[in-house]
Amino acid sequence: MADVLPPEIERRVRDSFARQGFMKTVGVTMDLIGRGVCELSTRHDESLTQQHGFFHAGVTAALADSAAGYAAYSMMPEKSEVLTTEFKLNLLAPAKGPRLLARAEVVKHGRTLVVAEANVYAGPTGRETHVAIMLATMMCLTEREGR
Amino acid sequence: MADVLPPEIERRVRDSFARQGFMKTVGVTMDLIGRGVCELSTRHDESLTQQHGFFHAGVTAALADSAAGYAAYSMMPEKSEVLTTEFKLNLLAPAKGPRLLARAEVVKHGRTLVVAEANVYAGPTGRETHVAIMLATMMCLTEREGR
Amino acid sequence: MADVLPPEIERRVRDSFARQGFMKTVGVTMDLIGRGVCELSTRHDESLTQQHGFFHAGVTAALADSAAGYAAYSMMPEKSEVLTTEFKLNLLAPAKGPRLLARAEVVKHGRTLVVAEANVYAGPTGRETHVAIMLATMMCLTEREGR
Amino acid sequence: MADVLPPEIERRVRDSFARQGFMKTVGVTMDLIGRGVCELSTRHDESLTQQHGFFHAGVTAALADSAAGYAAYSMMPEKSEVLTTEFKLNLLAPAKGPRLLARAEVVKHGRTLVVAEANVYAGPTGRETHVAIMLATMMCLTEREGR
Repeated sequence: MADVLPPEIERRVRDSFARQGFMKTVGVTMDLIGRGVCELSTRHDESLTQQHGFFHAGVTAALADSAAGYAAYSMMPEKSEVLTTEFKLNLLAPAKGPRLLARAEVVKHGRTLVVAEANVYAGPTGRETHVAIMLATMMCLTEREGR
Repeated sequence: MADVLPPEIERRVRDSFARQGFMKTVGVTMDLIGRGVCELSTRHDESLTQQHGFFHAGVTAALADSAAGYAAYSMMPEKSEVLTTEFKLNLLAPAKGPRLLARAEVVKHGRTLVVAEANVYAGPTGRETHVAIMLATMMCLTEREGR
Repeated sequence: MADVLPPEIERRVRDSFARQGFMKTVGVTMDLIGRGVCELSTRHDESLTQQHGFFHAGVTAALADSAAGYAAYSMMPEKSEVLTTEFKLNLLAPAKGPRLLARAEVVKHGRTLVVAEANVYAGPTGRETHVAIMLATMMCLTEREGR
Repeated sequence: MADVLPPEIERRVRDSFARQGFMKTVGVTMDLIGRGVCELSTRHDESLTQQHGFFHAGVTAALADSAAGYAAYSMMPEKSEVLTTEFKLNLLAPAKGPRLLARAEVVKHGRTLVVAEANVYAGPTGRETHVAIMLATMMCLTEREGR
């Protein structure tokens, strides 16, 4: 359903993702990237848990934030950078099960700011529970502005 | 400045923290716990970075959320559990430097819900920059209600 | 599409709405109420504007919050009260035009907390622009707990 | 404590405030404006209530958002406009009493984005209760960019 990205934009997004040491630490894979959409997932591991053995809210936040960021970045011009300015996360249910999956979609695409929504699901494939919802604002930095 | 906790409450908080696999993964230490306050910190490591080598927003979120959660938990009755229901994080500056530190404080302490604010700082000790601010709502679950 | 409410619940919701002096001040009408959904709208008036003559963000927030609150309330047990605990609003575009409309839907229905999303649109009927999105947490207070 | 504003900036802020029809509707007065700080208040009136006769959350949100916006605007360059991009409001206690007061302060002042915190109090003067806390992001629009 997601519009396919031009190869150079997909490469730019995947290169940025590959440079995030923290995404490796959390074991995240980029399962889908399209124009304004992104899906990321990870597998359960004790290194990602809170005190009851479920996925830690920090993992849920990292997954949702990164999915929202790359959904936004897929719509930004060449030679731009993406930056999270803020996000809000509501936790809806315990994030338990073998897999955690975040699906993000751009809600509003402005020149400077992009608003995205991410939904996070946990559980066995096909029987996931909706565990979190995020609203995030991403900023587009162009070369002219530096970082 | 923080009120000292009764030893059994401090133990309950530190036991819960010690059971969080993700806190170990992120290398977090609990530097201070008092009545309604908590400080957590971690050291820079490539495993915690985003694409420019700074601390990943997911790390910042995890640190702030956990600090807020334990600040709240320190005020909850025996045999209760703490649960994050939602949080909002504003990122104010790049989280760069050798150390990331979150200080959380309870803003409002209700029977069921506790609102806490966390501020996150990055940089060398004594020359930190204010990099993020979080508002979070924590829920108190008592045994009667189960989880 | 919205499930019809039992008459006594619809009456309870509409009675609560009718007791809100501020909804009268803002000229709000309840256009739709169903199980877990609510639509509220108002008409442009100089009394509702910000400095450029558009709907004030406070009006947008009030409309979205009330729609989210009544969507949540429609799913709460008899003799309960609904209370907003927190909300987050992203403003996406100037709220200009003759009419402002908020559509809220429950995202997650818990016993104590209900999470709802509201989308706000402005413009002439049929040509509205998406001007805001809200995530809100509502709390259910039962008689036993008092207020 | 607040730094005094140059007269032309104070005039620009007060002119903008005076053009907001909705602030008149809610009966708001600007009690203090300084560099990066703003206080707004209103008096209880049936036209501002929710179903229990307390100040409506929409009134609380409007007051806090406007205070945050003008605190931010006081630090923006000449010929700029201020725009709320998002805010998050936690409601801490019922907003009851004769007066509602919002105090906002800039947390982080960037060239494009300004983050502000607002705290809202209700009650008789000198015996106010802390009823709400807001984190808001404001955007600076300069003439070059148009609106």
